[in-house]
Amino acid sequence: MNFASDNASGAAPSILEAIVAANSGTAPAYGADSYSARAEAALGELFERPAVSFLMSTGTAANALALGALTPPWGAIFCHEEAHIHDDECGAPELFSGGAKLVGIPGEGGKITPQALRETLARFPRGLVKGVQPAALSLSQATEAGTIYSSDEIADLSTIAHGAGVAVHMDGARFANALVALGCSPAQMSWRAGIDVLSFGATKNGAMGCEAVIFFNVEQAADFVFQRKRGGHTLSKGRFLGAQMAAYIEGGLWRTLAGRANRAARRLADGLAGISGLRLAWPTEVNEVFPIGPRALVPALRARGVGFYEWTSRALAPALAPREDEAFLRLVCSFETSDAEVDGLLAIVRECCAGGRGAKD
Amino acid sequence: MNFASDNASGAAPSILEAIVAANSGTAPAYGADSYSARAEAALGELFERPAVSFLMSTGTAANALALGALTPPWGAIFCHEEAHIHDDECGAPELFSGGAKLVGIPGEGGKITPQALRETLARFPRGLVKGVQPAALSLSQATEAGTIYSSDEIADLSTIAHGAGVAVHMDGARFANALVALGCSPAQMSWRAGIDVLSFGATKNGAMGCEAVIFFNVEQAADFVFQRKRGGHTLSKGRFLGAQMAAYIEGGLWRTLAGRANRAARRLADGLAGISGLRLAWPTEVNEVFPIGPRALVPALRARGVGFYEWTSRALAPALAPREDEAFLRLVCSFETSDAEVDGLLAIVRECCAGGRGAKD
Amino acid sequence: MNFASDNASGAAPSILEAIVAANSGTAPAYGADSYSARAEAALGELFERPAVSFLMSTGTAANALALGALTPPWGAIFCHEEAHIHDDECGAPELFSGGAKLVGIPGEGGKITPQALRETLARFPRGLVKGVQPAALSLSQATEAGTIYSSDEIADLSTIAHGAGVAVHMDGARFANALVALGCSPAQMSWRAGIDVLSFGATKNGAMGCEAVIFFNVEQAADFVFQRKRGGHTLSKGRFLGAQMAAYIEGGLWRTLAGRANRAARRLADGLAGISGLRLAWPTEVNEVFPIGPRALVPALRARGVGFYEWTSRALAPALAPREDEAFLRLVCSFETSDAEVDGLLAIVRECCAGGRGAKD
Amino acid sequence: MNFASDNASGAAPSILEAIVAANSGTAPAYGADSYSARAEAALGELFERPAVSFLMSTGTAANALALGALTPPWGAIFCHEEAHIHDDECGAPELFSGGAKLVGIPGEGGKITPQALRETLARFPRGLVKGVQPAALSLSQATEAGTIYSSDEIADLSTIAHGAGVAVHMDGARFANALVALGCSPAQMSWRAGIDVLSFGATKNGAMGCEAVIFFNVEQAADFVFQRKRGGHTLSKGRFLGAQMAAYIEGGLWRTLAGRANRAARRLADGLAGISGLRLAWPTEVNEVFPIGPRALVPALRARGVGFYEWTSRALAPALAPREDEAFLRLVCSFETSDAEVDGLLAIVRECCAGGRGAKD
Repeated sequence: MNFASDNASGAAPSILEAIVAANSGTAPAYGADSYSARAEAALGELFERPAVSFLMSTGTAANALALGALTPPWGAIFCHEEAHIHDDECGAPELFSGGAKLVGIPGEGGKITPQALRETLARFPRGLVKGVQPAALSLSQATEAGTIYSSDEIADLSTIAHGAGVAVHMDGARFANALVALGCSPAQMSWRAGIDVLSFGATKNGAMGCEAVIFFNVEQAADFVFQRKRGGHTLSKGRFLGAQMAAYIEGGLWRTLAGRANRAARRLADGLAGISGLRLAWPTEVNEVFPIGPRALVPALRARGVGFYEWTSRALAPALAPREDEAFLRLVCSFETSDAEVDGLLAIVRECCAGGRGAKD
Repeated sequence: MNFASDNASGAAPSILEAIVAANSGTAPAYGADSYSARAEAALGELFERPAVSFLMSTGTAANALALGALTPPWGAIFCHEEAHIHDDECGAPELFSGGAKLVGIPGEGGKITPQALRETLARFPRGLVKGVQPAALSLSQATEAGTIYSSDEIADLSTIAHGAGVAVHMDGARFANALVALGCSPAQMSWRAGIDVLSFGATKNGAMGCEAVIFFNVEQAADFVFQRKRGGHTLSKGRFLGAQMAAYIEGGLWRTLAGRANRAARRLADGLAGISGLRLAWPTEVNEVFPIGPRALVPALRARGVGFYEWTSRALAPALAPREDEAFLRLVCSFETSDAEVDGLLAIVRECCAGGRGAKD
Repeated sequence: MNFASDNASGAAPSILEAIVAANSGTAPAYGADSYSARAEAALGELFERPAVSFLMSTGTAANALALGALTPPWGAIFCHEEAHIHDDECGAPELFSGGAKLVGIPGEGGKITPQALRETLARFPRGLVKGVQPAALSLSQATEAGTIYSSDEIADLSTIAHGAGVAVHMDGARFANALVALGCSPAQMSWRAGIDVLSFGATKNGAMGCEAVIFFNVEQAADFVFQRKRGGHTLSKGRFLGAQMAAYIEGGLWRTLAGRANRAARRLADGLAGISGLRLAWPTEVNEVFPIGPRALVPALRARGVGFYEWTSRALAPALAPREDEAFLRLVCSFETSDAEVDGLLAIVRECCAGGRGAKD
Repeated sequence: MNFASDNASGAAPSILEAIVAANSGTAPAYGADSYSARAEAALGELFERPAVSFLMSTGTAANALALGALTPPWGAIFCHEEAHIHDDECGAPELFSGGAKLVGIPGEGGKITPQALRETLARFPRGLVKGVQPAALSLSQATEAGTIYSSDEIADLSTIAHGAGVAVHMDGARFANALVALGCSPAQMSWRAGIDVLSFGATKNGAMGCEAVIFFNVEQAADFVFQRKRGGHTLSKGRFLGAQMAAYIEGGLWRTLAGRANRAARRLADGLAGISGLRLAWPTEVNEVFPIGPRALVPALRARGVGFYEWTSRALAPALAPREDEAFLRLVCSFETSDAEVDGLLAIVRECCAGGRGAKD
């Protein structure tokens, strides 16, 4: 049982089949193939708007290159202080922007509030020579805390950002999970809510390795072919990216897969809610569950070979903070997490919590 | 028929099978999986020496990250003036080195001579503050002209470079084709000949998208995990890279595939040699053939849907330079180029050359 | 009357004389002159230790180049969240480090506490591939709040940093003011307290434009000549930097000048302390005074042509935070601020505060 | 006697006086002072066109920042293969452009010909993704060979560049020397001939350390205040730059100084022409003289304490190349080189050449 991350799963069968099918014959290199064209068309249709999209094989590249297209080296990129782009990409946005400054904004549950955004923007007046210039806001949907912004919340933050001349990027590594949870359209959750550029993730949700950077303002994409190539992210056999993305979207596979992952997480969260001595750090809105409970959970899960991460966060409400004798875990479900696996995990946790209490009694 | 590049082919069947086989179950992310370990072990055994290897999905990334590990921002990277790293990667080595200077060295047939290397190094004395500092030599094996260095030639150049405190990188995008042509061991063509870091390409020779950067001097790899991650080149589902590389090496598949591509090019070159009005720009040593002939070839091949590139080069002996009424072509064979395709291409060329002469008579 | 900054003053007369004296005859360019040698020797003697020093003309360059010598592009630079390097240099440290990440640490009065440093370092475990690597701690002495660290405080922070493999830089733009206030030796306030690299400022304290980067660990300076040259900070007529720095140090001029500025600020702070309706944000430890008082101060001072800045800070104790009807000012004294100027300023403030109260009554 | 470089001289007396005069009283920092305003106005008047100018203290910074404003990181900067920006600034243009590629163009006498420029541009088609994008042409006026372009030659090259969408920069480290030699107006030699951005040097011609970057297309300067600040090149006591530049221009001092340097070089060249066994590598068009003569010159000049550089160049006509037993020297005159110094140098050379011949007889 592996709840460490959704990227511990392989590719969804349909996507693997699409890769295999794309293998026959020769095809033009570097994305000039028919599979990539199909993916581009499918993305355009999905988002109900002419857009320019670029495929690549990692989410780090998608985020960092997208931000690099929005930000000069002397720019500021605003994001949640625990955003993946700030904490987990080894400075990739700094590399691809030529050294921009990421400005972390605190916020409970991994979310930026309009008030916090306004206060932060106020510290970076445009034209103040000694300061870096406000350039981009990056919103993670879903967030690092497994929470989501509503379309209205996104629109509010985008309006504030645009009012300050700041472009808005969405890190959609788990875009599908958030979308299915909200039940809105891709357009509503992106450009209709003010998103300028979207990192549209597929890897965590069943692709082998495929992400799209989608520009809704085409002029911001003017130099992106060079930026992607220069970053080493233009795959020569691009048909395999195109095939993955087309299969991911066509027939709604991506929603199906995300629905499965979210439901598994819901089942897990519901199960955990019934176990005494456990609490959740944040509500389970997509496919990530963050229980806080007895430290004995850690060795118990390890002993049973369960994959998971111990977690820390400054985005936790003080009242919920783990005590010294408690563990804080992240458990992630993927498109292939089965009910049996969830139930198996719950059984271990139940036993452990019961035992933990017993041991203390 | 597609002779545009060896990357117009898909993946070799065995490699595709390995990808499919690697898909079942969960696996640790970011290269901590058993497939990647198998690939690492296979590479170590192949090169008969403890080495550190890193997998990624593009050759641009492999070259640029490898060079970035050898060169400070104020360094000089020496390479042939038409090297792929200089002309065809949109400045990727500059990005990953923080702005190093690539210094092109002219040389017939795409090769650097010891004399030219010495003269160039003399222009960059170490410690001269106003000049960039000599840092790395990059040799392309095979070269952009489809020629190869012998192991002795590599050793001579490496000795000169090392004598100047300059590390030696090999761009081995077509390492397999060169190796099969030379008939030597991977060790002989790399570290035994003084190569410090190797971009070991698999994509052009039958992988879906997989290259290894191999450090023979382990200390030069000290920061490479950070450099690769920061570049967005650490794939989350790393098992698929590991599976490709393991399948590529195990059982000698890589030699088999390269042998096929080289033989197809030999058949093509031999066939072209018998056609009057044609000459080859350079000897056919691997899987690339560079004919110069009547301009009518271009529309004739286009009309028949043959993929190819028109070429230009400053590495051509003056006596061979194309006249105004001539075309200079690059034709590349891959592991799946069939005899029938080669013969079909030859038939078109023959017809065209005969017609061309007729038209002039 | 200009209390905007100590850099509103020109050069101290002795320094100007030294510049004039250095003008006669020819001299080797780029710092190979005798004036630069004299400065280097004077700095070495002053710090009681063989050190390598580099002169340049701005503090931004000194800080950013020094940090660039300590930090790889994938490194983290820890500093107070309102440090000059973070807020006021338009991303210069990011440029010269190749895109490192500055990590702001909050702290009252502009100072980093050992506890805050430890907590921050804990978030950046060495070797965690997804995170930037802990590289440098930068301490501002004096701080942006006009406060100073004791030598013991510096030593404590350095010990923590070194324990984490993190080098320690001091932004000494106001090194002289802090030193005179502490009454210790330059060595005690720098390398004996664990400082590895010092930006030794002279410009704010009477030079025309001259700063030294001093490496106490000579091996960290290995590439600095290239880094400075590449940054455009190696002056061709370097003798004029050497002459400034030599004149600044020789005969203790630098202490004399700093003593004057500090005394002027003390007089100003003492005067303000006696005015009802005013409070100081932080204690006046060097040459900067931060009064909080009625908003009417702003137009009153402007009307009289007094130079000053309105201020904001997150390093203020909550109880002291300015109310809506209050102004928060920064007033800086220089080596040439006279008692008469201080008294003139105090008279305006007194009148205004009296008037302000009157207006409200 | 120092003929090593024109930067071996100090500041011209009038410029030093202006610095001293600017020292009294306080002044706004960072270039908001009246001296800087005067310099800006004087530059505008001099160039007969509204322009935006920025002062800084080194020529390396002026060139590299100017090029950084014209070139994206994936851009190509075209220049003579021995241009100062390519060979003598330790990669500064690469730093400030974020890693652009400098493309050297060969050319006798340090000059780029229209034909060579066209051929080089043809190798960098705009929009070719794998190639860096043509961005800027940099012309050195005077060149590294002490030769100059006529206004017509500049206009021809600019027209070709602009036709390819390439902006044109002039490295005018010796702008004054070239202008005086041509006898045209500053406008004719710059924007009327198509120059977009000019590095207007004053340091080599009598300033203490002051250069201006002048944008004739104001929109290209949009971000320059940030680029200069981020580079550490915005001096706090900016009045001293303003005072230098104003004094340099006002009253035509700059022409006077350059005229002196050129005349000294003319006297030197004429004297050398009369000495048997010597030849000049290139015509003496400004203040640099490049004799080739017996190797004995080197020890003879060293023994007499004469400052000079031994030279090498690929821009030399083959027929003039120095033989094994010959030395190739660069001798530079400054505004303060006296006739007596020139004559003294000539005497040494004459004696040496006579002796050299004698020794051989």
